[in-house]
Amino acid sequence: MQRGFCSTVIRRRCDQMPPAADPPLTTTPTQDDLKRVAAYHAVDLVQSGMVLGLGTGSTAVHALDRIGDLIRRGTLRDIVGIPTSTKTEAHARAVGIPLSDLDVHPVVDLSIDGADEVDPHLNLIKGRGGSLLREKMIEGASKRFVVIVDETKMVNLLGGSGMAVPVEVIPFCSKFTMSNLRRLFSGIPGFHLRLRTTPGDEMTPAVTDNLNHVIDLFFEDGITSDLDAVSDAILKIVGVVEHGMFLGMATSVIVAGKDGGVTEINRMGVRRIISG
Amino acid sequence: MQRGFCSTVIRRRCDQMPPAADPPLTTTPTQDDLKRVAAYHAVDLVQSGMVLGLGTGSTAVHALDRIGDLIRRGTLRDIVGIPTSTKTEAHARAVGIPLSDLDVHPVVDLSIDGADEVDPHLNLIKGRGGSLLREKMIEGASKRFVVIVDETKMVNLLGGSGMAVPVEVIPFCSKFTMSNLRRLFSGIPGFHLRLRTTPGDEMTPAVTDNLNHVIDLFFEDGITSDLDAVSDAILKIVGVVEHGMFLGMATSVIVAGKDGGVTEINRMGVRRIISG
Repeated sequence: MQRGFCSTVIRRRCDQMPPAADPPLTTTPTQDDLKRVAAYHAVDLVQSGMVLGLGTGSTAVHALDRIGDLIRRGTLRDIVGIPTSTKTEAHARAVGIPLSDLDVHPVVDLSIDGADEVDPHLNLIKGRGGSLLREKMIEGASKRFVVIVDETKMVNLLGGSGMAVPVEVIPFCSKFTMSNLRRLFSGIPGFHLRLRTTPGDEMTPAVTDNLNHVIDLFFEDGITSDLDAVSDAILKIVGVVEHGMFLGMATSVIVAGKDGGVTEINRMGVRRIISG
Repeated sequence: MQRGFCSTVIRRRCDQMPPAADPPLTTTPTQDDLKRVAAYHAVDLVQSGMVLGLGTGSTAVHALDRIGDLIRRGTLRDIVGIPTSTKTEAHARAVGIPLSDLDVHPVVDLSIDGADEVDPHLNLIKGRGGSLLREKMIEGASKRFVVIVDETKMVNLLGGSGMAVPVEVIPFCSKFTMSNLRRLFSGIPGFHLRLRTTPGDEMTPAVTDNLNHVIDLFFEDGITSDLDAVSDAILKIVGVVEHGMFLGMATSVIVAGKDGGVTEINRMGVRRIISG
């Protein structure tokens, strides 16, 4: 079964001559293999001439590599990429994807990006990598936003994985902003939060591409309140720039499972692309 | 009548020995005289030991000078000021006001600041000077927020003076954020907006203390929609950090009139402090 893990990808692009290479095969797929499988399926949706939102993170990087490969082969032409972070900008440039920005291309045909969590309604948590604002701006400007994840990212409730729900804040008096966020969620059992720090240096706040800080919220049992109300309440706190809940934005999610199966979830339902 | 313009100020502070100087008298008060009169009345509310929010702008600067003067005289002791801008920080330091910030002093006893517009419900427009985020954060943390204006700032509808309603935005793709703001208010007759530029250099965006940009919104007839709904809609736009509508935040407004009269407006009603 693993032999066919990636070889039966349904190709929806018609201008694909010669066929692009499939992802490398493995007998026991690692989490990174699964991310690559999901990414390659999403890139099958890319057509020549498209303006693409280019995601950030360990899953999205596979999509960048694949798009760059298809451009080099001549399979994809006239692609314009809008990077969601300075890191993605550098990587996209390195693999040969022509770049622009929303000021020049305010309408994006298709965005492809990973997510930290996906709930059954296609709401997402993103931004643990620190690029949530640019991602939300670009993916919110997209006609179609395809999320690519391995199955470990699927949760019943956002925040339910026990990992962070990030909030980007202005550095000015960020402790005060943190106390306002703490007050907003006081009374929720197991809730806590902390200022994100630079890896290896717990005294220095991490800095986003926009030179802001990030406060990470943790919900032991996930967010059980109405998500739109939680979103509004966070945004109303002075000093908050944006949060990592992407509500109602994804048009579909491609999920790669450990059993080799690939599933697409969209507003219409669940479709098995490859059986596990 | 002008003789008594400032000499009959109602003094509410009891520890005032020797009495602080009244503002300089003029026979024909200029707009700056009126600003100073309002500022001095507000400073009458300051008591020793208070944590003060220190406003920014041409009216607030009179309050800073007055507080500094009273500290030097020994009339006010143990004052801690929280400045709302780097400009105010420098001025407050120069006049001898000890400074701190919200991280150290998260509860402010009294904030005193000017406003660009005040409506009959004490809603404000602030931030034409570019300090709206810090002002909103500090004044929102205040037990009491006293606004000081000359009578030209009173409007029936916010935006009704024809001057800008400022929105602080992240510099990244600010043209795109501007197009989203334009779309939000499309269909409102006479509405227009523009990116604020540096004085004397129309090609360079103005930069706030938080290193952000400002988009100025103009409403020919003022904002006729529900202000809370307008506020929420602006804050939901990705890339928006904060806006200059201060809704339900002011506890009172001290208005100096051209006729020499001074009025205090609060939630209980209107009180004439000095008859014109």
